[in-house]
Parts: sequence; C-alpha cells; structure tokens
Amino acid sequence: MIGTQRDIDILVSEVGPRDGLQSIGNIMPLADKKAWIDAEVSAGAREIEVGSFVPAKLLPQLADTAELVAHALTLPGLTVAVLVPNLQGARAAVRAGAHKITIPFSASETHSLKNVRRTHLQMLEEVRAVATMLREQPVAGRPRFEGGMSTAFGCTYEGAVPADKVVRLAEALMTAGCDEVGLSDSVGYANPQQVKQLVSRVRSTIGAQAFAGLHLHNTRGLGLANVVAGLEVGVTTFDSSLAGLGGCPFAPGATGNIVTEDLVFMLESMGLRTGIDLYKLLGVRKILRAALPDDELYGYVPAAGLPLDYISASSADAAVPHRPAVA
Amino acid sequence: MIGTQRDIDILVSEVGPRDGLQSIGNIMPLADKKAWIDAEVSAGAREIEVGSFVPAKLLPQLADTAELVAHALTLPGLTVAVLVPNLQGARAAVRAGAHKITIPFSASETHSLKNVRRTHLQMLEEVRAVATMLREQPVAGRPRFEGGMSTAFGCTYEGAVPADKVVRLAEALMTAGCDEVGLSDSVGYANPQQVKQLVSRVRSTIGAQAFAGLHLHNTRGLGLANVVAGLEVGVTTFDSSLAGLGGCPFAPGATGNIVTEDLVFMLESMGLRTGIDLYKLLGVRKILRAALPDDELYGYVPAAGLPLDYISASSADAAVPHRPAVA
Repeated sequence: MIGTQRDIDILVSEVGPRDGLQSIGNIMPLADKKAWIDAEVSAGAREIEVGSFVPAKLLPQLADTAELVAHALTLPGLTVAVLVPNLQGARAAVRAGAHKITIPFSASETHSLKNVRRTHLQMLEEVRAVATMLREQPVAGRPRFEGGMSTAFGCTYEGAVPADKVVRLAEALMTAGCDEVGLSDSVGYANPQQVKQLVSRVRSTIGAQAFAGLHLHNTRGLGLANVVAGLEVGVTTFDSSLAGLGGCPFAPGATGNIVTEDLVFMLESMGLRTGIDLYKLLGVRKILRAALPDDELYGYVPAAGLPLDYISASSADAAVPHRPAVA
Repeated sequence: MIGTQRDIDILVSEVGPRDGLQSIGNIMPLADKKAWIDAEVSAGAREIEVGSFVPAKLLPQLADTAELVAHALTLPGLTVAVLVPNLQGARAAVRAGAHKITIPFSASETHSLKNVRRTHLQMLEEVRAVATMLREQPVAGRPRFEGGMSTAFGCTYEGAVPADKVVRLAEALMTAGCDEVGLSDSVGYANPQQVKQLVSRVRSTIGAQAFAGLHLHNTRGLGLANVVAGLEVGVTTFDSSLAGLGGCPFAPGATGNIVTEDLVFMLESMGLRTGIDLYKLLGVRKILRAALPDDELYGYVPAAGLPLDYISASSADAAVPHRPAVA
C-alpha cells in the first residue's frame, strides 16, 4: 500500500518518462510507458513527471502525454506531474487532470532565447497568464504550479549565472503566480558549495515551503555530491531519472540526469526514507531494457550490486535488512 | 614553483602509481611512471604514493618501487609515499628514503585473513615491529607511519563492520605506534551519513591531527558524495587515482578509486585550494593513454570538459578564470 508523503523523509521525483524519453531518438510505445510507471509506483514512487504538453511535431516521443496522465491518475498515492512550456500546454494539463505542472524558465536569458525564443519578461508574462488561468479553475481540479528554473547554476552560453539574478528571478516567478520554484543544474555546472549557498539564499527569499526542490545533473560526476550539499541545507525533493535516461549526455559514461537507483541507494543507506523499495526499483530496469534495446542504461548500483549489509531506511520498521534480489 | 602544504586547503594524495598500476595486468615501464609522476608534480601534486614494497613475484607491476622512490625524491615539494605490507617492506622503504609509509590493516578480520593471512593481533604485532624499527632510525630519515584501515565502512565477506570496532582498532593502531590512521572504503560500501559519523568518532578518539584522511571508492557512484561528507566533518586529505585507475572495478563505468581529475574539479570549484592546476592535470592523462593503450581511463570532467565559468581556487590570486586548454 502506498502511504502519504508524510511517511517519507525525501521525495524522489521520477522524471524519466518526460526528461528521459524526450532525449532519446526512439519512441517508447504507450503500453511500455504505462508498464514502467505502474512498476515504479509499485516500487514506491510517489511523484512521476509522466510527460510534457508540447506540440507532437516538436516532441513525438511525448505525443501520448494526455493518455498517460489519464492512466497515471488511476494509480493510488501518485502525484502526476507534467511539464508545460506555455499557457496552451498548461490548459491541456488542466484538461488532462495533472496534479502538478512545471513551466521551465531559464535563468540565462541567452539560453531562454535560444531554447524558447523568449526573453525573461516574455516568459514572466506567460507565467502570469498560466497563473491567472489556474485561478479560474475550481480549487479541486487546480494543479500545483512550479517554476522550474533551468541553468540556475550556470549556462553553456553565458557561463556563470550570478546568484543575485537567480534569487531575483525566483522572487519574480513567485510574484507572477507560481506556487513554488525549483532550481535546475541543466548543464552539470553546479558544485556542492554553490548548491548550499544558492539554495539557502533562494529558500530564505521565497520561503522554505515554496522551494520545490533540486533537479541535478551528473554531467561532471558531481550529481550525488550536490544532493548531499542539498540535504545539508534542508532540501527534501530531488528529481532523478531511472537508469539515468536523458539529460543530454555529453560523452559515454557522462550521464545527464542523476540515476534514480543510485539516488535511492544513497538516501536509504543514509537512513532517509524515500518510500521506495530498491529491489523492486532495480527490477523496473527490465522494462526499459526491453522497450529501449538500443539505448544505454546508466547506474553504478545496478552494475555493482547492493552491499551485503544494505538496510533500507524505508523498511527499517521491519528491523531486518532486505536481502539482495538482484545480482 | 611548488609551495608547501600550508598554502593549500585540501591535500589530494595521488595513489594511481601504486593502487592503480597494481590492479591492471600490463606493466608500465619505469620511464613512463617517472614521466607520469614528473608531470603530476608539475601540475601541482603534493603527495604521491609511488609504489609498494612487496615481493616482485606477487606484484611485478611495482617491482621498480625503489628506483621510483629515488627518482621521486628529486622532485621538490613532493611527499613520497609508499605502501608496505610488513616489517620487511618497511625496512625497504626506509632504505629507499620514502617520506611516508602506509601499512594496510583490514577492519574486517575475515578480509585480513583472506588477504594477508593474518589475524588482527598478528597485524598489530607487525605494526609494533615496524614502529620499533622506525624509532631506531635517525629522526631526519624517519618516515611518517600511517595505519591505513581498509574495509572500515563494510566488507564484501562480513558485510557491516561495526563502528565501535573501527574506533577500537584505530586506537589500537595508534597504541601500536602509528603516527596516524586513515580510513578506507575499500569496497565502495560507504554512504555520506556513515562517513560523517565514523570519521567524527575516529577523529575525536585518536585526535584530529592523527587522522590521516579518507581513501574512498566510487564503486556505487558515491565517491564524491562521500568526499563532501568528509569535508563537512573537517577531513583535509583525500586519496584518488588519475583517470580512476585501479581499485577493482566491478563493472564497466563502475570505477574503483575516485578520479583525481573529478575530485580536483569539485574541490577547486568549491573554492578549496588543492594547489593543482586542473588544465595541466588533464594533460597528464596523455601519458597514461600512451603507456596503457588497452586500459580504460575514467573521469567525467575529462569526458565533458570544464564549465565555461570554471575558476580555480588555487589560482584565485590571479583573479581571472583559467580558460580550458582541453576540449
């Protein structure tokens, strides 16, 4: 049985079905996506970003997002999240009944212009329009609205993005009507010291309860190190992707998204409850392997296996360690 | 010019020429080893474990350790470290003139018996014999003597190794005559919470100045996350291996030793001075590539390249960021 969020310490938000699948060339059939989500929820996942409401001609991999949302809504205890690039996407998300929508907003204006051809002011206008539309919805069907600030830790076009600017933009997103703001290290530039400093500043400015969490990449191998830094300053939500799918890998072995399996291993080993059964989670990879036979699956724990003494914090009530179900 | 240790915040102790080369099948010619060490010292390395005084028939890869020590002693500012398994090795290290010797001591007695066929009591006897021999040397030629406690965070034979036992053994090593004790996660079992707790306990028991540092592995992807945990509790010395050579990789991409290049990148990005010029360090890989054409070289930063805004803490005096010299 799936519990509520209050019985976990850290929310691991799975972004693979959106961020992972949009980055690979193959289109995963809807039935496989459903099987993946079902299995991951069965392993204990509490929040999954299942897709993105973007034009199908731009991202044919995610064209079935509405159907996937409908399916995901049948799974008890799951927060069904989607990405929306604009008001039109947000309307589609509301129609589909998503629990949570995230609009990406790039802290680097150069990146914003190259990626979505909009300035910061134009994007803030879009955020305001989405917020207005959401306020017109009945409270019961109103999704939570996150501003997902990409390139918050640096940008491959601009280089450093000043912390003052990130703090100011986080405030602007809240003023424009977001319920919460998350920070994303889209290009793998963040370091642990920066994570601690920037997260602390943003949290103290917009309020800890409005801080949505961290979306970290492992491009330069610092993904989990940055998670530790986030934990040190009180972050309780981290995005990750099963098998590290997606996130624009730069080179073999240099994954983009942090790997859900490795993240859950680290957190549970530290005594932090994610609600996720790691043995079951490792089993979910089989669905990916079968559905995406040509794509590389990442992960250290899946390759090395679990330690003999692995004890899951989430099953600590049982007071006995799980035994490895996988090699 | 190489500075003294006081102008750095963190000592990165390169163990590749010993730990890396003993783990691979090919024997690196002495000339290449010298070129590697020269180049890494030229990049700013302050301490290198250049070899191990073990019988050549056991580890032919390290048979030239005495010659390598002699060469390394000519490099200004370098602490020349070696591994010694026993009194005989320690005598050889003293004859060669090494600045530092480390004797491995396994916290898991099962591992100790399988690895060196000795109980804890027998190993402590050996440590005492080495300490006695060292006290008979003139002070000027007396190397620093570290007890390197392997399997301190868990063991693939025994599973969990109780923290109480590690603390007790660290104390026993100091009583037996070690100058300092380091902790090693030989099999990649450690997690950040455990690192913080165990290091804190050992440091408070033997004294912070007697804590030699951490030797961490990246087998389950937590290497740098565990470094962050170590930094949080005041650790200032970390072992690593150029290109992640060695340390018994379990699977492709699952390296053993943490990668010096990635470690230096993380520390310098955090504003912690290692004294190492990362651009020069990345160039040293060419020597490994040429000398070991068939062995895999690891590292995220070497694969992804440096961020546009990378600023080295060690060159912060210059107040200008280095520009990437490598792709």
